Amino acid sequence: MSHLSDLEIANQSTLKRINEIAEKVGITNEALEPYGHFRGKVDITKLKDKTEKGKVVLVTALSPTPAGEGKSTVTVGLADALNQLNEKVMVALREPSLGPVFGMKGGATGGGYAQVLPMEEINLHFNGDLHAITTANNALSAFIDNHIYHGNELNIDSRRIEWKRVLDMNDRELRQVVVGLGGPGRGVPREDGFDITVASEIMAIFCLSNGIEDLKENLANITVGYTVDKKPVTVRDLKVEGALTLILKDAIKPNIVQTIEGTPALVHGGPFANIAHGCNSIIATNTARKLADVVVTESGFGSDLGAEKFLDIKARKAGFDPSAIVIVATIRALKMHGGVSKNELKTENVEAVKKGIVNLNKHIENIKQFGVEPVVAINAFIHDTDEEVKFVEDWCKGQGVKVALTEVWEKGGKGGIDLAKEVLKVLEKPQQFKPLYDLEMSIEDKLETIVQKVYGGRTVKFTDKAYKQLKTIKENGWDKYPVCVAKTQYSFTDDPTKLGAPTEFDITIRELLPKTGAGFIVALTGDIMTMPGLPKQPAALNMDVNEDGTAKGLF
Amino acid sequence: MSHLSDLEIANQSTLKRINEIAEKVGITNEALEPYGHFRGKVDITKLKDKTEKGKVVLVTALSPTPAGEGKSTVTVGLADALNQLNEKVMVALREPSLGPVFGMKGGATGGGYAQVLPMEEINLHFNGDLHAITTANNALSAFIDNHIYHGNELNIDSRRIEWKRVLDMNDRELRQVVVGLGGPGRGVPREDGFDITVASEIMAIFCLSNGIEDLKENLANITVGYTVDKKPVTVRDLKVEGALTLILKDAIKPNIVQTIEGTPALVHGGPFANIAHGCNSIIATNTARKLADVVVTESGFGSDLGAEKFLDIKARKAGFDPSAIVIVATIRALKMHGGVSKNELKTENVEAVKKGIVNLNKHIENIKQFGVEPVVAINAFIHDTDEEVKFVEDWCKGQGVKVALTEVWEKGGKGGIDLAKEVLKVLEKPQQFKPLYDLEMSIEDKLETIVQKVYGGRTVKFTDKAYKQLKTIKENGWDKYPVCVAKTQYSFTDDPTKLGAPTEFDITIRELLPKTGAGFIVALTGDIMTMPGLPKQPAALNMDVNEDGTAKGLF
Repeated sequence: MSHLSDLEIANQSTLKRINEIAEKVGITNEALEPYGHFRGKVDITKLKDKTEKGKVVLVTALSPTPAGEGKSTVTVGLADALNQLNEKVMVALREPSLGPVFGMKGGATGGGYAQVLPMEEINLHFNGDLHAITTANNALSAFIDNHIYHGNELNIDSRRIEWKRVLDMNDRELRQVVVGLGGPGRGVPREDGFDITVASEIMAIFCLSNGIEDLKENLANITVGYTVDKKPVTVRDLKVEGALTLILKDAIKPNIVQTIEGTPALVHGGPFANIAHGCNSIIATNTARKLADVVVTESGFGSDLGAEKFLDIKARKAGFDPSAIVIVATIRALKMHGGVSKNELKTENVEAVKKGIVNLNKHIENIKQFGVEPVVAINAFIHDTDEEVKFVEDWCKGQGVKVALTEVWEKGGKGGIDLAKEVLKVLEKPQQFKPLYDLEMSIEDKLETIVQKVYGGRTVKFTDKAYKQLKTIKENGWDKYPVCVAKTQYSFTDDPTKLGAPTEFDITIRELLPKTGAGFIVALTGDIMTMPGLPKQPAALNMDVNEDGTAKGLF
Repeated sequence: MSHLSDLEIANQSTLKRINEIAEKVGITNEALEPYGHFRGKVDITKLKDKTEKGKVVLVTALSPTPAGEGKSTVTVGLADALNQLNEKVMVALREPSLGPVFGMKGGATGGGYAQVLPMEEINLHFNGDLHAITTANNALSAFIDNHIYHGNELNIDSRRIEWKRVLDMNDRELRQVVVGLGGPGRGVPREDGFDITVASEIMAIFCLSNGIEDLKENLANITVGYTVDKKPVTVRDLKVEGALTLILKDAIKPNIVQTIEGTPALVHGGPFANIAHGCNSIIATNTARKLADVVVTESGFGSDLGAEKFLDIKARKAGFDPSAIVIVATIRALKMHGGVSKNELKTENVEAVKKGIVNLNKHIENIKQFGVEPVVAINAFIHDTDEEVKFVEDWCKGQGVKVALTEVWEKGGKGGIDLAKEVLKVLEKPQQFKPLYDLEMSIEDKLETIVQKVYGGRTVKFTDKAYKQLKTIKENGWDKYPVCVAKTQYSFTDDPTKLGAPTEFDITIRELLPKTGAGFIVALTGDIMTMPGLPKQPAALNMDVNEDGTAKGLF
């Protein structure tokens, strides 16, 4: 195994100029907007003659450990392997939030020899998308408060403004604030709060829009709050959807970068996978489908969260069918699901793997329910033993499930050739994808379907608050939207400590939040953190820049 | 006169690719980091072999009217005229704040046929500098609050935190807020407020740093507040100067664009001219001095504000002597100084011009005091009459002052040839520049020097609060910094209604704010607005984007 850090490997890699990377997939110099030498944006208005024909391979995972299972790493490595097998392939990933970078170690660009580059730039500011989203979000807040300040013609109830401000920052101090203090010249005092930018509804809209006109329409549909008579107030009522779209006009162009092996990658959009749907942008995925024959993309957390939302929300909105789905499994996660504690994951324990396989089994079932054949990728970690890996391989084969050990972290694309070959076999066969529920179903039925079929639970319960909100949703005709469940990623239940594949449990919906711009109803279960805090010793303390401008301590 | 809007003229212009513009002044493809096709950043580490030898021409103005006198327009037009005269010339301008763009009509990129392009991109996000400064500023806030939350080892008094959060937004609702509400898990409740990003001390530091190491040192020197024992707490104490520098590492590279006539322009940094010094970055000006023989730059408002700070703060820190100074005068401003009301400026009134000339006279005197020969540019407006213009020309000639009518708004560089020729005459003569005061003088003496010599007043008075602050400044050894006076731009006095060239007045210093990172002491006179608000009908209501991504209603 390699002993170099991700940053060292990244720094040792020789990058190609971004125009060379773009050329590989037919992006002309006219359509490529370079940002520095090694990253750029794609002007999609220059690709209108191309059709969206690339097949989509989704990478998901079993219920993850707190450290994650290397889903981005496998996504990148699989694409590199497909590239080595002479497939015309692109990666489509989420872009990282700047906020957490200063809090804890760890970027969001893959790892080892399966990374997208340039790592520093992708993790810091990138091409400005998150800043544009922050600006659009906070401009809307300013427009709302300005409307109230100048006479409040729309009769907005300042106690019922649902729209919060955002920063791309881990800043717990801003979770709950009072704004507008200091007398009549300084606005109207009211309660407010700041979320992190990736939790903004604008980020979700950004990722679920099919183009600039659709973006504008979705922004116009945002419900910012309610009037004194409890009627919804939208961005359309405020007449600022044009301005918000203008703020996002460059951000909405997909960002192009490269993997260590020179495979073209679109890294664009990154909504929280808890209160939002946790997938990269539709525009990027569909742009990749215009340029490549195979598009490898990922969704947040396990099949119960990111993949379910990818399939029921994103794919439905984007109008494509996924052609194969990879489930990333790790020996350490299977052990945790088999009852082993976090501190003992490094010891061989085939029995625990055997017990934990129920979790993988449920994720396989979930994918099959959507009509797509899954491929299990065992993502190799340094402490895995041959016995443990063999058990999982044999178990998969016994179930008739395709499986491959991947060593992309250590070996790059070469370590993913077996996986790539299994995926190609699936791509040759027609799949029968269909979303899990019909949009015409009631919110309650949609939720029950997800809980029973995907989580393996019994039923859904609603708090009084959620019932009240359900009533508002029905009154306003918002019940035909898909649902976006906010749930712990560690368990199929709403209790993060219940690992494996529990049954006989109910899910309690605490709140139902209509996101009429994004076009989904968020169903909150448990505590959802929409503004993280910094640890006592933030990673920022070790960060620095050399005189020549190179970063130190970033990862 | 042209009847096209600035945006129409901009859209009709044919831009050259930014690499062609960069090549003109010897920036290699290696040193140029393109951002799209028509803008870029200059990697100054690749220009180390070049020496700073270009001469600096500063453009200032008389005391302006609320609409401004077209200083940026003259700056751009003068550079284009020098270019037409075969001088190797560059423009160095401030970059606009996004905040005001949504509030009122009007960008900050010149006007008519004397503009820098691409206008849309420069006015919206540009190359991300203001977003990076916002992020650095707010990361520091998060680090301060996080330090207090996790035990407050430095014993910071949460009532004496001087560091405010910022947004690049006109948002009066955020001027005064309470943060940290919601219980022990959500921080420590305290009073706070948001300024607009251009008012951030980090913007001032950004513009007054000579390189990345100097930037880091200046950031480390920021005083964020005081301990319970009233000792200053700095960024160095928090150990985050490396992280803040990292956030700014790309932003600090100067942005290159072009004028309508293809003259290379560096547009970089833009601190408020009220609570900060109001000039573009030292790095950009000195980079332009490496690449061109003549650098035309501007400073905010009149000679009493921007130019005084340019000469006493920026030029001193940057280590160059200005070689010529242009004072932009307009007939309409002279009329206002001659007692004509805002609504009657369009009527010919030579008598008023005659009376108002005292204001121009004082600005000419001011520039001469710094040892540099001024050139008066009469910036033509549509309602000026020949009589009015002739009076000003004759008056200047009578005083032995160089003068030229400029029609750069209407004609581009061609309209500035006369001005350029006068400026070239001054550039041939050695100047005797020296700052107005010595840094070893006391704060009181520095202020008295400025008030008497530049404003033409009697003396300086201090409020009790300012006296107390003066004591703190002396105790901490901060009294050797230059002073940065925050004063109305409309009058030489601290009363915006006193036009012309008043005498027999005193200036009252309300507060003295030590900016130990930027390296100056702000002296507040009158009310200073550091977070603007939006008007009842913000410009945002008319903004939109076409399907092909082009902006509508931006200007």
